[in-house]
Amino acid sequence: MNLQLDGALLLDQIRILGELGADPLHGGRTRIALTDAEKAGRDQVVAWMKELDLDVRVDRIGNIFGTLPAAPAASGANLAPLMMGSHIDTVTNAGALDGCYGVLAGLAVARAYRVAGVLPSRPITIGAFSNEEGVRYQPDMMGSLVYAGGLDVQVALDTIGTDGTRLGDELARIGYAGDLQPGAIVPHEYLELHIEQGPILEAEGIQIGVVENLQGISWQQVTVQGNANHAGTTPTHLRHDAGYVACAAVAEARAIARDSAGTTLATTGCIAFEPNVINVIARKAVFTVDLRDPDEARLCQAERRFADFLERIAAEEGVKISSERLVRFEPVDFDRDLAGQIEASASRLGLTHRRMTSGAGHDAQMIARIAPAAMIFVPSRGGISHNPREHTDAAQLLLGAEVLLDVVARRLA
Amino acid sequence: MNLQLDGALLLDQIRILGELGADPLHGGRTRIALTDAEKAGRDQVVAWMKELDLDVRVDRIGNIFGTLPAAPAASGANLAPLMMGSHIDTVTNAGALDGCYGVLAGLAVARAYRVAGVLPSRPITIGAFSNEEGVRYQPDMMGSLVYAGGLDVQVALDTIGTDGTRLGDELARIGYAGDLQPGAIVPHEYLELHIEQGPILEAEGIQIGVVENLQGISWQQVTVQGNANHAGTTPTHLRHDAGYVACAAVAEARAIARDSAGTTLATTGCIAFEPNVINVIARKAVFTVDLRDPDEARLCQAERRFADFLERIAAEEGVKISSERLVRFEPVDFDRDLAGQIEASASRLGLTHRRMTSGAGHDAQMIARIAPAAMIFVPSRGGISHNPREHTDAAQLLLGAEVLLDVVARRLA
Repeated sequence: MNLQLDGALLLDQIRILGELGADPLHGGRTRIALTDAEKAGRDQVVAWMKELDLDVRVDRIGNIFGTLPAAPAASGANLAPLMMGSHIDTVTNAGALDGCYGVLAGLAVARAYRVAGVLPSRPITIGAFSNEEGVRYQPDMMGSLVYAGGLDVQVALDTIGTDGTRLGDELARIGYAGDLQPGAIVPHEYLELHIEQGPILEAEGIQIGVVENLQGISWQQVTVQGNANHAGTTPTHLRHDAGYVACAAVAEARAIARDSAGTTLATTGCIAFEPNVINVIARKAVFTVDLRDPDEARLCQAERRFADFLERIAAEEGVKISSERLVRFEPVDFDRDLAGQIEASASRLGLTHRRMTSGAGHDAQMIARIAPAAMIFVPSRGGISHNPREHTDAAQLLLGAEVLLDVVARRLA
Repeated sequence: MNLQLDGALLLDQIRILGELGADPLHGGRTRIALTDAEKAGRDQVVAWMKELDLDVRVDRIGNIFGTLPAAPAASGANLAPLMMGSHIDTVTNAGALDGCYGVLAGLAVARAYRVAGVLPSRPITIGAFSNEEGVRYQPDMMGSLVYAGGLDVQVALDTIGTDGTRLGDELARIGYAGDLQPGAIVPHEYLELHIEQGPILEAEGIQIGVVENLQGISWQQVTVQGNANHAGTTPTHLRHDAGYVACAAVAEARAIARDSAGTTLATTGCIAFEPNVINVIARKAVFTVDLRDPDEARLCQAERRFADFLERIAAEEGVKISSERLVRFEPVDFDRDLAGQIEASASRLGLTHRRMTSGAGHDAQMIARIAPAAMIFVPSRGGISHNPREHTDAAQLLLGAEVLLDVVARRLA
């Protein structure tokens, strides 16, 4: 069996999909889940699936699946499929690769079978999961979460977006409220090819990342309530300075990361003071904390140390602190056997590779709840993603797809 | 000579002036310098000056002076006046006392002479200085600064406000572009009665603050330029996190205050991150630092330690930091003799009193450049000012005015 990847066509499709929702003014493209722009992306992907004569199905949460049947002779028709997938929704002013690369590389693998005129030993399904980015409707990774049974489909459909719309209504409006029950197709195994969205592969000059696990994620929003007072007349020991407390907590979060020897990450991306006046001690400060660690026990330890710090400084400064948990996902260990296969394929193709942890969340972490799953990473220039400057060299994109094809071919040989 | 304060009328005038520019929706009053609301306040104060048959003069920067002449017999007509004053412009949604109390108490002292039918041994001038708050036109304390020769009047008139208006045009528009040269009347000495705007007198249960000096003020706006990157995929050692650096600097500023044993104050009232997204490392952070100390050497030391910290952490984190100086006033020592007189008057009236430092800036610090000056403080409930909740009990307001009257009477006996 001689399966050949049509690299030029894969790159073409990435470019064409990337033009849907393009924002010439601010750069990149904006295909927020279940908008008209994202419907255009869905229509395009479905059209490409149909060109490959895949059996296209849409489930109740709008996940799209295109399936290449197994060879009848292999009596694999009733076997669970090998699934490849990712998502095609984007953040605002996104790059062209995040998610789309994985979906379109899956199509490229299916195309290789079609071009060779052979069918695999079990069905191959390419999935495009709904609302991975979670920009308009929370939580993110919603389509794969529902699919894996982690969120009730009706609850998901009733989600109200940041713009006041109901997810189910928008899904019906764009024509992607399917009738397939989420999770009806349980894959035999799941592979997701993705750009790293981080700087490690580029920094180390390595071509392929073999993702063996995915960090746990803990997001909280912390609100500090102090007293507004005059900056010039209030002695330090009489202050209840919400702004100082917030900043001290951010510095503590960095200390937690530093003390972890590299495994725990801590980020404060958002902060706001009230009244936000130069000579008024902040009455209120609100900030976010994003903690991540590939090990659940260490992640819990980081959360605990941070909570202890908040309790201690609240007492010292005489402020009230409350914390709202926004997101909490446990770390995910991907399938060792699949990861080993990816490693073997990369070696066979003469590519440099390393085991690594995914820092970002991906649909694969949800599917890992119901099937063996693993991910393949290619380098991201400057580690930049969620940004029009997101970039991976075409040659690197093709190498990643070659590894994917090789893994699939070996699994289904 | 039996000088009697008309306390009821003083409180009435405070109330009436406080109704001009009232904001029933958000509370308090808003009489930003040189607006229509502030013109109404000026007109009211001038009317009251004229009721007392004071000689009213307006200078080129809009400072208003009402002068009670000296007794002809005393041949004091040509003597420099004893001046009392403050300002009647306000911040947004201000209390009724900040500034107005000092001006109206000055009028109450002049009234006591008028009612007693006697004239002082040298003229008494009550000044209402333009634009003390500096909300629309910077710098603050502008009228007294120009008056004391610290800022050229033409430069001040050419100041462009936050709303794009030219100060001189607005001054002419409201009819307060006078022809008196600023500083033409150099006072023999200057007294300013003011609410403390801080918590010390209330916390210690003391009735009168004898202000012996005024803190130096150093304001800067710091901009940290880092790199935006994904919170989950960027290892700590590869981060250039502008947000973390800003917060660490705020924590350092507090450490500077703490290490000073109470003399240095440090406040960060404003902060902003870009792009301000929960899972994106901040590309940019902008924050303000307000440092104060009554001792110039210590204030310089605090500034230097903060600058050193910024330099060190910029190198550590790989970010660029720039700092813009917004305001810098050296500490002011008030006149020892006048302060002693205030202390003596408070004692004579049986009032508890203490020497103290003014944490806030006041017109007195400018006038101190050209004449002996001192201030009298009364307690502020909760230390709250620049807020509709600003409050001092009526009885306390009258005690402060009694001290002012007693000091003036003794100086001019």
